[in-house]
Amino acid sequence: MKILTRHKHARIDKLFANTSAGKRVAEIYPWFERCVDSVYEQYSAEAACGSEVVFVALPSGEAMNIVPDLLDRGKKVVDLGGDFRLKDVSLYEKFYKRDHTAKERLADVVFGLPEWNRSQIRSATLVANPGCYPTSAILPLVPVLKEGLIERKGIAISSLSGISGAGRSSSVDLSFTEVNESVKAYKVGVHQHTPEIKMALEAFAGTPVSITFVPHLLPITRGIYTSIYAPLQASATHGDIAAAFRTYYESEPFVRWSETVIPEIKNVNHTNYIDIGFRIDADNNQLILLSAIDNLVKGAAGQAVQNMNLMFDFDETEGLVA
Amino acid sequence: MKILTRHKHARIDKLFANTSAGKRVAEIYPWFERCVDSVYEQYSAEAACGSEVVFVALPSGEAMNIVPDLLDRGKKVVDLGGDFRLKDVSLYEKFYKRDHTAKERLADVVFGLPEWNRSQIRSATLVANPGCYPTSAILPLVPVLKEGLIERKGIAISSLSGISGAGRSSSVDLSFTEVNESVKAYKVGVHQHTPEIKMALEAFAGTPVSITFVPHLLPITRGIYTSIYAPLQASATHGDIAAAFRTYYESEPFVRWSETVIPEIKNVNHTNYIDIGFRIDADNNQLILLSAIDNLVKGAAGQAVQNMNLMFDFDETEGLVA
Amino acid sequence: MKILTRHKHARIDKLFANTSAGKRVAEIYPWFERCVDSVYEQYSAEAACGSEVVFVALPSGEAMNIVPDLLDRGKKVVDLGGDFRLKDVSLYEKFYKRDHTAKERLADVVFGLPEWNRSQIRSATLVANPGCYPTSAILPLVPVLKEGLIERKGIAISSLSGISGAGRSSSVDLSFTEVNESVKAYKVGVHQHTPEIKMALEAFAGTPVSITFVPHLLPITRGIYTSIYAPLQASATHGDIAAAFRTYYESEPFVRWSETVIPEIKNVNHTNYIDIGFRIDADNNQLILLSAIDNLVKGAAGQAVQNMNLMFDFDETEGLVA
Amino acid sequence: MKILTRHKHARIDKLFANTSAGKRVAEIYPWFERCVDSVYEQYSAEAACGSEVVFVALPSGEAMNIVPDLLDRGKKVVDLGGDFRLKDVSLYEKFYKRDHTAKERLADVVFGLPEWNRSQIRSATLVANPGCYPTSAILPLVPVLKEGLIERKGIAISSLSGISGAGRSSSVDLSFTEVNESVKAYKVGVHQHTPEIKMALEAFAGTPVSITFVPHLLPITRGIYTSIYAPLQASATHGDIAAAFRTYYESEPFVRWSETVIPEIKNVNHTNYIDIGFRIDADNNQLILLSAIDNLVKGAAGQAVQNMNLMFDFDETEGLVA
Repeated sequence: MKILTRHKHARIDKLFANTSAGKRVAEIYPWFERCVDSVYEQYSAEAACGSEVVFVALPSGEAMNIVPDLLDRGKKVVDLGGDFRLKDVSLYEKFYKRDHTAKERLADVVFGLPEWNRSQIRSATLVANPGCYPTSAILPLVPVLKEGLIERKGIAISSLSGISGAGRSSSVDLSFTEVNESVKAYKVGVHQHTPEIKMALEAFAGTPVSITFVPHLLPITRGIYTSIYAPLQASATHGDIAAAFRTYYESEPFVRWSETVIPEIKNVNHTNYIDIGFRIDADNNQLILLSAIDNLVKGAAGQAVQNMNLMFDFDETEGLVA
Repeated sequence: MKILTRHKHARIDKLFANTSAGKRVAEIYPWFERCVDSVYEQYSAEAACGSEVVFVALPSGEAMNIVPDLLDRGKKVVDLGGDFRLKDVSLYEKFYKRDHTAKERLADVVFGLPEWNRSQIRSATLVANPGCYPTSAILPLVPVLKEGLIERKGIAISSLSGISGAGRSSSVDLSFTEVNESVKAYKVGVHQHTPEIKMALEAFAGTPVSITFVPHLLPITRGIYTSIYAPLQASATHGDIAAAFRTYYESEPFVRWSETVIPEIKNVNHTNYIDIGFRIDADNNQLILLSAIDNLVKGAAGQAVQNMNLMFDFDETEGLVA
Repeated sequence: MKILTRHKHARIDKLFANTSAGKRVAEIYPWFERCVDSVYEQYSAEAACGSEVVFVALPSGEAMNIVPDLLDRGKKVVDLGGDFRLKDVSLYEKFYKRDHTAKERLADVVFGLPEWNRSQIRSATLVANPGCYPTSAILPLVPVLKEGLIERKGIAISSLSGISGAGRSSSVDLSFTEVNESVKAYKVGVHQHTPEIKMALEAFAGTPVSITFVPHLLPITRGIYTSIYAPLQASATHGDIAAAFRTYYESEPFVRWSETVIPEIKNVNHTNYIDIGFRIDADNNQLILLSAIDNLVKGAAGQAVQNMNLMFDFDETEGLVA
Repeated sequence: MKILTRHKHARIDKLFANTSAGKRVAEIYPWFERCVDSVYEQYSAEAACGSEVVFVALPSGEAMNIVPDLLDRGKKVVDLGGDFRLKDVSLYEKFYKRDHTAKERLADVVFGLPEWNRSQIRSATLVANPGCYPTSAILPLVPVLKEGLIERKGIAISSLSGISGAGRSSSVDLSFTEVNESVKAYKVGVHQHTPEIKMALEAFAGTPVSITFVPHLLPITRGIYTSIYAPLQASATHGDIAAAFRTYYESEPFVRWSETVIPEIKNVNHTNYIDIGFRIDADNNQLILLSAIDNLVKGAAGQAVQNMNLMFDFDETEGLVA
């Protein structure tokens, strides 16, 4: 909502909610008082169809129940959840632990990572907006994988996420006193973003890869910090790594990479940028890739608007820069 | 001070400080009001010699100027800083960026990691208390290295530290507004704890190793969380890893390891425990080791008292458990 | 549990829980691994009766259902909740919004604030442990009220509490992302601790008072900071205020007051102390009283053990100092 | 900079700094990479004179050395510091503890609180931007004072500030480990914003007042929460208070007040709004006023731009709403 209210070509037509239906947005989120004056409505496909594009942000397993109908009615959809990201339905069923009820739609979904899928997004009807962790991991890895600068296996992705990544929920596990002044890894090796990262790396780098993904929960509200440890190809140099980023990201509006600066979450806070840095540990033949994003912007809503901009042929950065 | 005031066999004889000399402890740290009624004194070797053991907690480069004199006067010393940890003086000079002025003492130093050096600590005169990061990394790694369950190279150590690890300082970089709600890696691949970890792993596991160590700064006060990614030997199983921990740590008073529970910093807060967990990622042949310590207890003062207990033949846990 | 495990004369006989019954303490709170090896049991009065004293820590409205039976069975009880604090049952019903089902027990309850009720606590059977906010407000106010140094009305009590004051709960309102980086007042003028503060002030100072109490929620885990604004009697001086504290608190083991030092929450963290400071604003005829406690220690469990120590004629500070 | 870069009618001509002179903005604050491409310059009046308005944000005591020259050169100035806020130079010298070297300019300064000084700001040459605490205290108090709904003395202002209020500094007192998980009052009754609040209340409400002001430091980055306790006039009702706010603030673009909603810092985060709420405690004849602002926006840079908008006859909200 924050992004769309300052977007030149977009207007929020309707806002749907479940338990909050019937309430003013500003009653639930008083930050929006005087900024958004809408009332949440109970969802119906009919009501949604007044819009040219529908953003779907639902818990896993719910989007697949409403998206097919929207597509059949000719609407464009950007889905911010996980239901349509995995092309391989068996992986969906393994990692999301439920059947997929809209399998037949998976073939036409476009994975919404603009830096690597821009032309397909432009003509997409259904865009699966990438997960927050995958965005932070795929963008640093693809250039060096594609250029053959690291090995295709033994890659370790160690990610740290703020609590907002878990959504707005009433779980004891996410209560302040449980997470404050602590850190923990969770879903080690079994997180549902693991196959998404692998799928995207393989698609965009054009080679099979083996990855280990370990997410950790941090006592901050926003932000993801991803540190990647990858076996370096014997001959690869610092300059080769820099050249790969220059090749692929020189004109990317939302990728800021540096040969020297180490990313920090605060530098991307409330922005659609991903910051990428790297170091080589020659003694251990390792490439260390570091990235930072705001999980709620480049990791979710910002990237969704970036995708919308492409789908409607707007300036890709509209609404996303000051 | 907190630990020693509740230690049955220890008494704080004198407390030395530099800029705080002449001030009451409770004036600088009002927490200690009614608990410690001492006044900080300006240091002199003579004044220190009324004690049987001297704990030295100084910035790098300062301990080496006072410890030799204390040893010559027959005192036992536990040094909590980095000056005496590295046996190889060239590594000290490379990573600490200064000359070592007490090289001749290095041969007799005992690295104070009780779990792997207990008998030598018992008879030591000078104990180099391990760094906080090294404690968190060495303890999970030695059993699996020693048992040959992981490869000796390609090991990545990704550590997260609370801000107290940097000491009490007036740097802008450590001010609340700089570090709050953010995360950053720092000294990537060049942190002075890197050679300390490598040295200890090689000494205790009896094999050369190659490691990559990346520390990160987190907005919490206390605690270190270390996630280690290591190439698994093809034949190694979950059961083998568990067996290695059982073999070496079954009767260790301060190592809590689990086949199932994932460590969290809050579980070790204000304790001398290290919590260790692990997972195997079979698809990528990786062992993931996870550990949590309180950097100020097992990572510093607690381990120092544990070492003192060994040096004076006290119960090893005295002062360190409820 | 932390306090009792280090108490010389106490032993935890049984631990009762509701949803956690049947689980090891260390499964729910892994911090206690190797420290408390008990299993939570489902509560029954019979099972509780093996103990000499029962600590009751239940949501409001539940203690009154089990305490009478325990008293009838001859047990001593320290109740940490609000059910037995208010002598006036109509205030209970107004502020706690439910009927009181054990009214007939209220006459014999002793309000467990040792500094002002020590002799009655020694012979009490049922002690109502004061609320966290009341402890932080009553202790600074009674001496100056009793000495007539402030007026009896127009007193404003502005309290700030860490989130642990709300207990371990799954409310969205207490989730990390809701409370982090924010502050709010709540239950302004209608908090159930308001009549408790008033009752205790009137009982201990021997005069009617009018107070306004406003609690605020802060993004910290532990601690209460209370700032009190009271109209100063025209003739009262800084020295008079100091003299009042000296008179009443000079030999109190857990009250640290100062004419100069301003309290800070971190100085009382994990201790049973209350720190009190004050300033006079002569231009506006106001006395400013400031206090800090750890809400979980002096504001709850620590004070409960202090009360137990009195009830059983142990050293009052046993288990509560290093 | 964030606000000005999205302002339709403003362009940043030059940025001056002292120790950072010669460095790129984005080197010091990498958040601005790709957003602000400027280099900090060493200040000179000549260099500043290319601009139509100069924003001065300097430590106290420094602005008075450069502002007179700018005024003499015909520039408009918005000073965000304290040097020009107090009309009474003796109060400046008492609370800021230094001589004032530009006394002769004080007569022409306009106090930049748009809600109460709009027409004077429009024609001002030098605007003294209000302090963060004063903004949060003056706005809730003036309507009820002006309408005679509270007494003119015995008013207590209890304010809580995030750490960014102290600026970017290297003090130990502002380091993460000192302030995290703690709270303290400071400069109790002697803070330099005390006379500023009193001066503005008297000017805008047209009556002498006596106030007590106690600031507290909180472990959050941004935001001020102010709780005011004021003796209510006997006859004043809830409706009277609401009517006063309606009268004065109904058409104010940046004042959001409510009869029911309690302000929270998170609701004003990154906005130029002040949120105001209130309650009456009839038993104690007290009015409780509550307000929340973002100290860096309505409490500093946002209000400065709001003032610039008035001085240059732009839409008052330009750059300040989505």
